[in-house]
Amino acid sequence: MRRAIEVAKQGSFTTTPNPNVGCVIVNKNNQIIGEGFHHQAGSPHAEVHALKMVGKAARGTTVYVTLEPCSHFGRTPPCANALVEANVKRVVIAMQDPNPQVAGKGIAILQAAGIEVVCGVLENEAEKINTGFLKRMRTGLPYVQLKMAASLDGKTAMASGESKWITSAVARQDVQVLRAQSSVILSTSATVLADDPSLTVRLDDFPQMLKATYPLGEVRQPVRVILDSQNRLTLNEKVFKQDGETWLVRKSAANLTLPDNVKLIVEDSPDTQINLSHLMQILAEKQINTVFVEAGASLAGALVEQNLVDELIVYLAPKLLGHNARDLCLLPHLTQLSQAPQFSFTDLKQIGDDVRLTLTRKG
Amino acid sequence: MRRAIEVAKQGSFTTTPNPNVGCVIVNKNNQIIGEGFHHQAGSPHAEVHALKMVGKAARGTTVYVTLEPCSHFGRTPPCANALVEANVKRVVIAMQDPNPQVAGKGIAILQAAGIEVVCGVLENEAEKINTGFLKRMRTGLPYVQLKMAASLDGKTAMASGESKWITSAVARQDVQVLRAQSSVILSTSATVLADDPSLTVRLDDFPQMLKATYPLGEVRQPVRVILDSQNRLTLNEKVFKQDGETWLVRKSAANLTLPDNVKLIVEDSPDTQINLSHLMQILAEKQINTVFVEAGASLAGALVEQNLVDELIVYLAPKLLGHNARDLCLLPHLTQLSQAPQFSFTDLKQIGDDVRLTLTRKG
Repeated sequence: MRRAIEVAKQGSFTTTPNPNVGCVIVNKNNQIIGEGFHHQAGSPHAEVHALKMVGKAARGTTVYVTLEPCSHFGRTPPCANALVEANVKRVVIAMQDPNPQVAGKGIAILQAAGIEVVCGVLENEAEKINTGFLKRMRTGLPYVQLKMAASLDGKTAMASGESKWITSAVARQDVQVLRAQSSVILSTSATVLADDPSLTVRLDDFPQMLKATYPLGEVRQPVRVILDSQNRLTLNEKVFKQDGETWLVRKSAANLTLPDNVKLIVEDSPDTQINLSHLMQILAEKQINTVFVEAGASLAGALVEQNLVDELIVYLAPKLLGHNARDLCLLPHLTQLSQAPQFSFTDLKQIGDDVRLTLTRKG
Repeated sequence: MRRAIEVAKQGSFTTTPNPNVGCVIVNKNNQIIGEGFHHQAGSPHAEVHALKMVGKAARGTTVYVTLEPCSHFGRTPPCANALVEANVKRVVIAMQDPNPQVAGKGIAILQAAGIEVVCGVLENEAEKINTGFLKRMRTGLPYVQLKMAASLDGKTAMASGESKWITSAVARQDVQVLRAQSSVILSTSATVLADDPSLTVRLDDFPQMLKATYPLGEVRQPVRVILDSQNRLTLNEKVFKQDGETWLVRKSAANLTLPDNVKLIVEDSPDTQINLSHLMQILAEKQINTVFVEAGASLAGALVEQNLVDELIVYLAPKLLGHNARDLCLLPHLTQLSQAPQFSFTDLKQIGDDVRLTLTRKG
């Protein structure tokens, strides 16, 4: 199963909106004879790749799979049936699929065919490779990662606005990898107007090893979602002219001619600002598993205050910018220490000259 | 030598102003037959402890010692002579003692007596156990550690001043250990007036293991040095009523009756503020090896701006306090990113719920 989880991770840049799944087939002598992972929605599932590799030798084998085999006809036929037809003897599953279209039905198909099924092996590890997919299936909301970069004293720019660069090139390369794993990169008109960023994934900026193993010829661009409640953007900004889609979020439909790869999302709650919680529901309905937020102190603070952040990823540079520099996070309603949003550290890592701190929301 | 360095560390809470030294004596079969470390100034040196343990069996042995054996009559007779008298065969030394009273003379005494001497074994590791002593000997300045504690976004208190507690009890326990290793705890009248702290080492707050191995019956209290350029303190504050000494630093002699354990230091440079660089020279002249700074954003910023900080120790709590909260470090003269004070991370560690980041000054 540990091997199956490793194999599954190879899809982590490309499977969205589908989950990462890995499959390993083992013969009677406990030798691995087949492996597969899910590459991309619409392409064969992990089990199909592994069965194809094994052919008729699948009969009597044990199959390790990181997520319950599917039971429904989607863009591909159900994997549970394929395992039955291949006459495998035993299927070991890390976890049930919470997708209501599956949710135990895959296991039932296998058991009805007389296949021995074990479920729950390395479940915690399997959970971690599909944080976004699983959260969306269970709650109808995407998994939100808020990326921040600051000096040791929590500053993101000088008083003048000068901010290039606080963190090192190696840290910015690390961000490219996190971007590439996400379904959406979320930013704001304020950031677009200030920096005119592309918000794309650039294969050239990947670490060498990843570049060599990226599972597709062409890089998958996460959808860029840009909040523009005051209709300040003209669509002439760089972010609208990149490969892949950009979704412009406004409060009302606008008199705009949209290029093919730009879509308008109207968030029409009664609030004058964009209702972030509603926006997250909309994104989940559009099958967005993970949202990677790269924006300024206002959006960061609003997401934190509304308890919408699942994970904080904070790059800290080994320098001090002092009290006149700009703050990391605006929390206008916070006055007492006991109300401060709390997180838990889950990872600390040195990235080039900087450190990366990862935290999840507490409680 | 690795064992000798480990042994030397047992003195790290008590040897100041002397260096940490460890000594291991090995017989012809390469078995350890004697060990010793320096406990405290005025008490026997590491070599004397180890030789005493071995007795007449010292003849023909190899002695590993982490610092060049002393050659001068201080409060104890020279160790180089003791090694000669014990008829040891070979002395392996991690590093020369930069103390001008020694500086090669110890090695010369050994060599003159026909003892084989090797110097420079694990020198980098030996350097690390005496950072403060070595800096003082080489530069006439103490080694300055600036401790800071903040939220993830670099805030030390709410706008109201509320700050108890941002970091966890475990982190504050960790601070006790760092305090206990330092020669001086440096703070300001502002901190004393705001918090009325004791600034003492409390054996009860030590981690259990350290409590069991502390090398003295009674804890050594670092000297508390309190900056009071505006003569705001009355000596009725807690910090003046604790075990151990407190040194009050003012710009001029004051009409004050000082208790026995309080001393006045007059920093009489032409500056209206206390000249921090001059203060550090004064402390080094008073044989202070290491200064552990626990103060507010003003002193922190001033020390950083004047390039007087050797090491930053930053505890970060996994919470966000927002832009209205108080800043970590005042750097009033900093306007351009290229002028920002730069450090290098040397250690990252999770301490209870918090993280501790250690950095040294770059360049």
